[in-house]
Amino acid sequence: MRRWNGWGDDTIEVPIGEGALRFLAGKLGPGAGPQDAAFDAVCAQLAPSKLPPHPLVDTTAAVRLQHALGQSLQDWLRLRYGRVEAAPDGVAFPESADAVRELLRYAIDAGAAIVPYGGGTSVCGHLDAAPGRPTLSVDMRRLRAMTNLDRESLLATFGAGVAGPDLEAQLRAHGCTLGHFPQSFEYSTLGGWVVTRSSGQQSLRYGRIEQLFAGGRMETPQGRLEIPTFPASAAGPDLRELVLGSEGRMGILTEATVRISPVPAFEAFHAVFLPDWERAETAVRAIVQARLGLSMLRLSNPVETATMLTLAGHEKQVALLETLLRLRGAGEGKCMLLVGASGEKTPSRAALGAALKIARKYKGVHAGRGLGERWKKNRFRNVYLRNAAWERGYAIDTVETAVDWPRVSPAMRAVEAAAAAALAAEGEQVHAYTHLSHLYAQGASVYTTFIWRLAGDFDADLARWRRLKTAASEAIVANGGTISHQHGVGVDHAPWLQAEKGVLGMEALRALFRRFDPSGSMNPGKLLPDETRP
Amino acid sequence: MRRWNGWGDDTIEVPIGEGALRFLAGKLGPGAGPQDAAFDAVCAQLAPSKLPPHPLVDTTAAVRLQHALGQSLQDWLRLRYGRVEAAPDGVAFPESADAVRELLRYAIDAGAAIVPYGGGTSVCGHLDAAPGRPTLSVDMRRLRAMTNLDRESLLATFGAGVAGPDLEAQLRAHGCTLGHFPQSFEYSTLGGWVVTRSSGQQSLRYGRIEQLFAGGRMETPQGRLEIPTFPASAAGPDLRELVLGSEGRMGILTEATVRISPVPAFEAFHAVFLPDWERAETAVRAIVQARLGLSMLRLSNPVETATMLTLAGHEKQVALLETLLRLRGAGEGKCMLLVGASGEKTPSRAALGAALKIARKYKGVHAGRGLGERWKKNRFRNVYLRNAAWERGYAIDTVETAVDWPRVSPAMRAVEAAAAAALAAEGEQVHAYTHLSHLYAQGASVYTTFIWRLAGDFDADLARWRRLKTAASEAIVANGGTISHQHGVGVDHAPWLQAEKGVLGMEALRALFRRFDPSGSMNPGKLLPDETRP
Repeated sequence: MRRWNGWGDDTIEVPIGEGALRFLAGKLGPGAGPQDAAFDAVCAQLAPSKLPPHPLVDTTAAVRLQHALGQSLQDWLRLRYGRVEAAPDGVAFPESADAVRELLRYAIDAGAAIVPYGGGTSVCGHLDAAPGRPTLSVDMRRLRAMTNLDRESLLATFGAGVAGPDLEAQLRAHGCTLGHFPQSFEYSTLGGWVVTRSSGQQSLRYGRIEQLFAGGRMETPQGRLEIPTFPASAAGPDLRELVLGSEGRMGILTEATVRISPVPAFEAFHAVFLPDWERAETAVRAIVQARLGLSMLRLSNPVETATMLTLAGHEKQVALLETLLRLRGAGEGKCMLLVGASGEKTPSRAALGAALKIARKYKGVHAGRGLGERWKKNRFRNVYLRNAAWERGYAIDTVETAVDWPRVSPAMRAVEAAAAAALAAEGEQVHAYTHLSHLYAQGASVYTTFIWRLAGDFDADLARWRRLKTAASEAIVANGGTISHQHGVGVDHAPWLQAEKGVLGMEALRALFRRFDPSGSMNPGKLLPDETRP
Repeated sequence: MRRWNGWGDDTIEVPIGEGALRFLAGKLGPGAGPQDAAFDAVCAQLAPSKLPPHPLVDTTAAVRLQHALGQSLQDWLRLRYGRVEAAPDGVAFPESADAVRELLRYAIDAGAAIVPYGGGTSVCGHLDAAPGRPTLSVDMRRLRAMTNLDRESLLATFGAGVAGPDLEAQLRAHGCTLGHFPQSFEYSTLGGWVVTRSSGQQSLRYGRIEQLFAGGRMETPQGRLEIPTFPASAAGPDLRELVLGSEGRMGILTEATVRISPVPAFEAFHAVFLPDWERAETAVRAIVQARLGLSMLRLSNPVETATMLTLAGHEKQVALLETLLRLRGAGEGKCMLLVGASGEKTPSRAALGAALKIARKYKGVHAGRGLGERWKKNRFRNVYLRNAAWERGYAIDTVETAVDWPRVSPAMRAVEAAAAAALAAEGEQVHAYTHLSHLYAQGASVYTTFIWRLAGDFDADLARWRRLKTAASEAIVANGGTISHQHGVGVDHAPWLQAEKGVLGMEALRALFRRFDPSGSMNPGKLLPDETRP
């Protein structure tokens, strides 16, 4: 069963080895896992529902609590410590677009806010109930069927609530794949990917969701918006681009048509170690700008490389590997680069060969397929480490941005330094490390992970998280980065959005959303801070 | 010097051979070139300027006439027959973004409409003066400098008024290219490409302008909109996508940063002849879906193939070629496919080889590089044929759309049939033929050319053109196509936009533009039919 106050299925445990715990204790001091609040106790705290009854709306406390929050560390603190201040007043599970339309009418008539719910994996507060008014959560997961498959155009149409594994299973039955694999893949949904501009681990081949979303259907308070599919169009601004990243402010996406691919005949992930960050960054830029047709590039900086090798356990093999790498020139400052190719065998092998050849120019040491295949096997399991770390008294959180190449290293260093210093006042250390998870000819995403020690008290831990999140976000904006490369804005990133959109840009988005949602009922407070003006 | 009532530089003549004329006379009947109106006579007809004087605004008749119209056939009729009913009341040539801002203020204070002017190559009425109010044309061509080059990120920033050859020359000096080559390349501008969602002949490698436009700066009546560059972002709807296709309704783009590439080390264009349309379409779909990394695919249908070979002249060589092709199975219904690759030599040759191998599966006959190189040499010259055809009494016009694969052949047949029948009532023939100019995994653009005979009288020829344009546009929409793949909407395509955007989509774009332009001064009537409501 799915964990209500942590990541994933409760039958899956990814433990932290003793070596890893020694490593964390050495860096951060010994940790102690706080006592979790009990599900029933937290249910009992919820205020009674303020929604009028409706046959489609479930107002039981358990269901409301299960839809109250997402997966941000702030959400975890509220759930684990039993401090859920707000939950939706009811949850609906529509099975058709017409039911969604009916629910919008019902909620708006009741003066309620509407929060669309996909996989519940938001890490920036997309699911928060609206303060000061009743809130209806609309859980889209029953709208999950593939309703059309066009093999000639490689297009497939799904209910927007379909989750990653279900979507891939329906496509694999026809020899096809979407190829969209965010780390949240196990639970996140197609609709959620679209409205938060998600990016998958193999976007280098398959593209971001922006490139995969070909058209669809959205129910808005002002009616249905139908977006037909064209391979390309010059007929004015592209309505798909208004839906992408709209985070529930325009309406609820009920159906999406996506661009699919045949299941690749061949796929391989290789590991290469570069001797230092400067050469690693130069090598990966040269590789991505060579347009080799790879499916993945993922470059860990020295601290992440060392941390990953430690957390991986298998101390003997790691020691052996490090000895071999040292002999071949990749010692202390080494950076691990994962290179993936997917497609026909011959061009994929040619692409991998060309990438390894470029890496060699920068003293890259090819470590074969072992680590790459291991990464692939665990790509959706590593996130479970957050559970194990919490239970041992450590919090793990991440931030990410994307910047043009000249800003990549400065942004990385600034975010890590800001995080490392954020808890100094209370004498706590933060272990921060970074990888470039998505590579572009123009630049890269910069994905930084923080590990720090829990205080064991809700208010103290919320304060620590806020200091960290604020320091990291300010460093991102100060270094010319976007406040999100792949997770969206929600509530947690909203304070920094104006830095990139500008006052006029923010006003334009407000005017746009108001046209679809005059009563301001759609996911208020998310993406754009709410209007105070009438 | 540039022709005022036709295409291009008046020192360049691309004559029609006698064989081609016999071909046209046989199809359409003998033609007679109408008498052109004189430039001075048309200037003398212009009503006096209704704009108040301003140091930056030129109100002389010659300059106003030179900015009155674009390159649509309707525009030609007005110019050639001297029936220019409306021209801007003045033309400004700003040299800075501040000057643009000052001009917007001046025009709005004067109750004037503002029409941005780039290369003057619009083929759908983007340049028409606003009826019933003074109009200021803002010619952007003095904002043409490259102001920044970021070699690491492969980004270059230009004044938005820079024209194709000037932009490429500034980049080539640094070993770089944008690789955006629409047929209008000789005159069209970067800003024009962005606001009309232009697509170049090698978009298969370089992408459409949507993929090349990384950020920029727009002056709007409500202030400056700055769009920073990020390699990717999940922070809400992408403001670039509001500017792309905005056709002057939001403001005037003054600066654009574009994604550039190193000049390719190798480039080659090959010709392949497929025996019939069915096999040709299947082959080209297989080639584009194989993601080989080609830079161009261009497939002519049988009528276009035959017409091109005839209009090319060189009757002896063509006869020889056709004999050889017939011997190898490509006879009557043959279709010419051009395949281009650009980049490093080894992968480009591999891509070409793989494409030719797929074509062979469908009985494609490789005709070598001759025709491909000839196409490359004449890629910007063929449009001059419109001048020569007119002088011999024939009109040439085109329409284009883009559709998913199952709709490609039906749309092509419907558009050709609608055009062929459009002038039947008056006993005139229309020679219609098509090529797929841009290929996508999802579908293709369908680009249809019409040739018909001029009546020699403005009203009769305008009526013929309207019947043709309407019949073709209705066929496009009825077959699920977008009203434009690469030229935009302007005035001429506006009646068909709602078919793809929907009522709600049209209203959303209106609300968006109104936020930037409350007085409705920016290029009124273009893209969206003007609001009648307050």
